[in-house]
Amino acid sequence: MADKKCALPVTREEDFSAWYQAVITGADLAETSSVRGCMIIKPFGFAIWELMQSILDSKFKELGHSNCYFPLLIPVDLFEKEAEHVAGFAKEMAIVTHHRIEYKDGKFVPASPLEAPLAIRPTSELIIGESMAKWVNSYRDLPVMINQWCNIVRWEMRTRMFLRTSEFLWQEGHTAHETEEEARRESIVMHDVYHWFIRDILKMYCIAGEKPDHDRFAGAVDTLTIEAMMQDGKALQAATSHYLGQNFAKAVNIRFQGRDGALHYAHTTSWGATTRLIGGLIMSHADDDGLNLPSEIAPYHVVIIPILKGTDLDGEILEYCQKIKGSVQKDARVLVDSKEIPSQNKKWDYIRKGIPFICEIGMNELQNETVFFTKRASDLAKVRMSLGEFAARIKSNIQDHDSVLQRKNELSCNQKIVREIKTFEELRDYFSQSNGFVITKWSGSEKNLDLIEELAVSIRCLPTEQAGSLGKCILTGEDATIDVVLAKSY
Amino acid sequence: MADKKCALPVTREEDFSAWYQAVITGADLAETSSVRGCMIIKPFGFAIWELMQSILDSKFKELGHSNCYFPLLIPVDLFEKEAEHVAGFAKEMAIVTHHRIEYKDGKFVPASPLEAPLAIRPTSELIIGESMAKWVNSYRDLPVMINQWCNIVRWEMRTRMFLRTSEFLWQEGHTAHETEEEARRESIVMHDVYHWFIRDILKMYCIAGEKPDHDRFAGAVDTLTIEAMMQDGKALQAATSHYLGQNFAKAVNIRFQGRDGALHYAHTTSWGATTRLIGGLIMSHADDDGLNLPSEIAPYHVVIIPILKGTDLDGEILEYCQKIKGSVQKDARVLVDSKEIPSQNKKWDYIRKGIPFICEIGMNELQNETVFFTKRASDLAKVRMSLGEFAARIKSNIQDHDSVLQRKNELSCNQKIVREIKTFEELRDYFSQSNGFVITKWSGSEKNLDLIEELAVSIRCLPTEQAGSLGKCILTGEDATIDVVLAKSY
Repeated sequence: MADKKCALPVTREEDFSAWYQAVITGADLAETSSVRGCMIIKPFGFAIWELMQSILDSKFKELGHSNCYFPLLIPVDLFEKEAEHVAGFAKEMAIVTHHRIEYKDGKFVPASPLEAPLAIRPTSELIIGESMAKWVNSYRDLPVMINQWCNIVRWEMRTRMFLRTSEFLWQEGHTAHETEEEARRESIVMHDVYHWFIRDILKMYCIAGEKPDHDRFAGAVDTLTIEAMMQDGKALQAATSHYLGQNFAKAVNIRFQGRDGALHYAHTTSWGATTRLIGGLIMSHADDDGLNLPSEIAPYHVVIIPILKGTDLDGEILEYCQKIKGSVQKDARVLVDSKEIPSQNKKWDYIRKGIPFICEIGMNELQNETVFFTKRASDLAKVRMSLGEFAARIKSNIQDHDSVLQRKNELSCNQKIVREIKTFEELRDYFSQSNGFVITKWSGSEKNLDLIEELAVSIRCLPTEQAGSLGKCILTGEDATIDVVLAKSY
Repeated sequence: MADKKCALPVTREEDFSAWYQAVITGADLAETSSVRGCMIIKPFGFAIWELMQSILDSKFKELGHSNCYFPLLIPVDLFEKEAEHVAGFAKEMAIVTHHRIEYKDGKFVPASPLEAPLAIRPTSELIIGESMAKWVNSYRDLPVMINQWCNIVRWEMRTRMFLRTSEFLWQEGHTAHETEEEARRESIVMHDVYHWFIRDILKMYCIAGEKPDHDRFAGAVDTLTIEAMMQDGKALQAATSHYLGQNFAKAVNIRFQGRDGALHYAHTTSWGATTRLIGGLIMSHADDDGLNLPSEIAPYHVVIIPILKGTDLDGEILEYCQKIKGSVQKDARVLVDSKEIPSQNKKWDYIRKGIPFICEIGMNELQNETVFFTKRASDLAKVRMSLGEFAARIKSNIQDHDSVLQRKNELSCNQKIVREIKTFEELRDYFSQSNGFVITKWSGSEKNLDLIEELAVSIRCLPTEQAGSLGKCILTGEDATIDVVLAKSY
């Protein structure tokens, strides 16, 4: 490793955290702003988010959800209606207390106090629930299935781009149902959508499961989660889906006349995924040369860089680049980049951006009608082929690219799945020198949870696939049948 | 009029303002929330907004703009950098002063004060400019052409759904250029995009022009506007595009090394359109039966309502509805609505929603393989045709629908264009009994502007198409060559 020249100033091995930041800077995804804890998502980063949005949004709609938009500002007293919920978010709410500023003693200061303080939404269960209460009178009005794409503020003291920022972008789905069974099913269906998206579209290694009771969403009855494994062995909670029982329905009075003629509280769910997925993507697929993009969310699959020499033939080279573009654009997203930047710089910029295929096209390629390109995911392998072959193979090349990414990620993660640890001592030893997902047994009791907290380790989830075998609880040594995933996390 | 039964509880003639609200309620577009001045955009209203977004967004990208995302919260002191700008927005900023709430004396109250107050963005010129200053070093880094779709808060005391709300959704484009010429051209190109969108896509009657100096965007050098005429003769400022000169570049230091080797300030532009367009759409095309939707932004062109009788044939009717859907879905957005609601209620719901073609399909249609439908825009004309003909004609029927909407709107608006008014007395008389766009002459001086302010009338714009003829200024009686549009406005 030490001998190889890399496109980033720091490698994963040297400093994972600095490397993460270097990937973001190198791919020009985002930057810090002058506002504490809030980042700026730059065009390339935002293009990735738009592709994620578009894939998820189509799936949500296909499943019968409609988008809508609820207010950013929520009266603080509305939060008081659900005790666990307000307790869960009280510490991280940003509060609007004034409207209007006025000039005083040489600067602008808040001027007109509001009658009652407003919170910037940290999530919208209550304000959306309030509307659902108005919309729902009879079982015929159910289910209500809505979603919104919006910004969220949760005041964070220690922030990290994409992973933890005071403001972030997300989607929040909210549904109300007639029965517990139907609501639980919805929460599972949406959990499965996230699992599909994260595993099959983003090609990220992950385990689907349920959160333990002590780590549910504030106010939820059940929280389902996708825990993705990052290259450093830590877990990232990548998307969650909650069955909220009747808790929120009771708090805001979502009641309906049932088929039996009596009044019932609805059963609700909520589910969300955020720009944090971009952080997960980086820590799953990026390497010491920068980002790597699974094809479905790559703003471009192919970038074509003309190598111009300032001769009469430059025009022909540019024309040939357009011809290459024309030959693959029905199967791939293609960009010809003829900006006035040295072509070597451009090439490395696109390597750091994780573009799957980077073509360098000059005299040689023009004269022989070939395409010379770098395969980003395959250790920057350089390939030359005829234009005809390049066009004929582009679809399968994109598929191969995805397979390579997935396989690399799987290989690296599989090594960090540990199933042999049976006692707390072994666990402590393991986490004192390594990071990974330890799959072991738990009794389900919260006794001795502080032991793992001291290791900065937590129960990430109870995987959906449970072996059902008998073993000893990692925390108490008691008989236990529940499989759990233990890991450090982001 | 009085004899005709209408689908809305109030007509335009009876009470335009109550009618406007009735259209929104009747089409289920939006509702008020528990937060002062903030509305909830419901699924049908949001689907219209998503179609608007998608058309504009494609056009922005086609013209070379990239989307990105900047923070919601802006330090108040950043606003102080541009004096006119801060003065323009000081009165309507919502201010965050605390993070965290705590329980005290029986309720939750703001707990931890921020070091410095943050404004919720009323617009993002300064925070985006701050980034541009970092991005731009040389003329090679220009132009920067970005856009963001986001929420905006401008605290309003008197609000009205879609037209004036404390929070609204919009897009804001921001660009930086090497020269004044290029920046001015950009502001005109984007103004033309809005003109195309509002006139050709939304089929709204409008006049494109420039704002007078006293009514520019706070901090702009030139503001271009699309002034749409509502059915009551009032103007709606539907979208604006600003040439900002070097004002913001100087405020936040967007400087670059030019081709001459010297340092120059960039020339910037900004341009935006908001959910207000939905308000404009309503007041352009809705009638006493509710909304009317131009096809490009209609969530559905065709809705098919099965008329079921609870007999064995219901299954066949439903199948036939699917067959109709299948026969037109390549040319139209189609919904089969088989919800358990009486079909007459459904039909009127879709009339109020402005769906162009509402089909009622029962035994008769099934047996004769015909389609019976209501043409929303053509005074609810009822038509029966064979399924084959319906499918063959759907494209031209959609075009006709758009033509009818446009023609009706033009007819109504043309009657309210007044070119004969030459003196202030005539103007006062006109506006004391009528509303419309008065096109007359202005000297360009701000003298006597208070005269029209007293009539609640303003100079909406200096139309792009100027006759250039000599006349007398409506305000001063002096010689004047500038054509202006005077109107009351939303």
